[in-house]
Amino acid sequence: MQLFYNSDLLTTSKEITFNKDESRHIIRVLRKKEGDILHITNGKGILFFAEIIIGSDKKCIAKIIKYEEKPCTRDYYLHVVIAPTKNNDRLEWFLEKATEIGIDEITPIICKNSERKVVKIDRLERIIQSAMKQSLQFTLPKLNPPVNFSDFIKNDFSEETFIAHCEESIEKKFLKNIASPKSKYTILIGPEGDFSHEEIQQSLNKKFTPISLGDNRLRTETAGLNVVQSIAYLHQ
Amino acid sequence: MQLFYNSDLLTTSKEITFNKDESRHIIRVLRKKEGDILHITNGKGILFFAEIIIGSDKKCIAKIIKYEEKPCTRDYYLHVVIAPTKNNDRLEWFLEKATEIGIDEITPIICKNSERKVVKIDRLERIIQSAMKQSLQFTLPKLNPPVNFSDFIKNDFSEETFIAHCEESIEKKFLKNIASPKSKYTILIGPEGDFSHEEIQQSLNKKFTPISLGDNRLRTETAGLNVVQSIAYLHQ
Repeated sequence: MQLFYNSDLLTTSKEITFNKDESRHIIRVLRKKEGDILHITNGKGILFFAEIIIGSDKKCIAKIIKYEEKPCTRDYYLHVVIAPTKNNDRLEWFLEKATEIGIDEITPIICKNSERKVVKIDRLERIIQSAMKQSLQFTLPKLNPPVNFSDFIKNDFSEETFIAHCEESIEKKFLKNIASPKSKYTILIGPEGDFSHEEIQQSLNKKFTPISLGDNRLRTETAGLNVVQSIAYLHQ
Repeated sequence: MQLFYNSDLLTTSKEITFNKDESRHIIRVLRKKEGDILHITNGKGILFFAEIIIGSDKKCIAKIIKYEEKPCTRDYYLHVVIAPTKNNDRLEWFLEKATEIGIDEITPIICKNSERKVVKIDRLERIIQSAMKQSLQFTLPKLNPPVNFSDFIKNDFSEETFIAHCEESIEKKFLKNIASPKSKYTILIGPEGDFSHEEIQQSLNKKFTPISLGDNRLRTETAGLNVVQSIAYLHQ
């Protein structure tokens, strides 16, 4: 099944008009014809079935014939707050994989040791969208704008909060031993140079629990995916 | 700590001569000088400490002053047999991440639906080496030459064997519920087009247990890393 994405679709929508690129892809690449049925999600848990009524490769139009509710089946809510990697590909890779495995919310966080302090949100958004489509999911993870650590840590946190840092003096536990199932989690992943000592202290003051990701030194994006898979595993 | 790799080093070795590229990297990029200590592993569980005695950026030579045994701390053995991805980057990405998280042996397998039937082993080997160094490990995962499914499945398997396929008619369980801890595992991951029905049947005849990786449709490399992290998680 080939899944399309259009955030504007509502259960009351009657038809959908694809832009030039999408139309070209549908008609020229996928060889779809008038009468063919397309599967489209709005990223809000709805799957639409639409019949192509105008098969133009410049402006393809499809009539919505029915929709199905496809609520997210995960029984937890995971928010990963991760420092952008020096190499953009690595953060993008994390977003693709985290979306495939299952994540609800992502916030890029700019830390004292962050070498990269700017991220292209539009590009990251497109990566999340295509990963959602590719993995046949119908709810789009929420991508927040980048935030500075000092601002982020000022928030009030009612959910379970964890931080993955590398300071060895502080005792750490494995997520599987401390995270309670079917809960809401916010997990902090630091930059290549780790969180600063101050940032770690600020998170501890806010009752973040330090977690261990194993004995090996993991790259930022590997640590990020590691917690996504650990939380998924906890709920299998 | 910056870790170097030289597979020729033995506990009896007296000194190490770096090639031109390594020498340039050590002297020009890392700015190491005569008298500085380098950390080198042979990928066989030994960490060597070597003092630079000739700091030439064309031919750097270091004298081995001591070594430490650093046996792999994992209490299981994981062999992932995975179909090369159509896009090389994705297999390479899997190798990097699997090495970071922890894997013992990897075999590229060519299946009926494999779009890619050739892999550059040298390049994959280098990716595994740098991931080992980067994650501060001292044992190099074993990379086998590519094998055809039909040949591979002829082997006798004494270890615990699993296959991750997408056929829905066959009941699947989660690894965490069927893999016994501290064991030896061989896990099959198929190509983009999944294993063929025959291949799945052949694996079932050989007592491979079908496993579920969750509800989402995962890419080959994501499925591969998913099992690596699941087995690691099982042993946390």
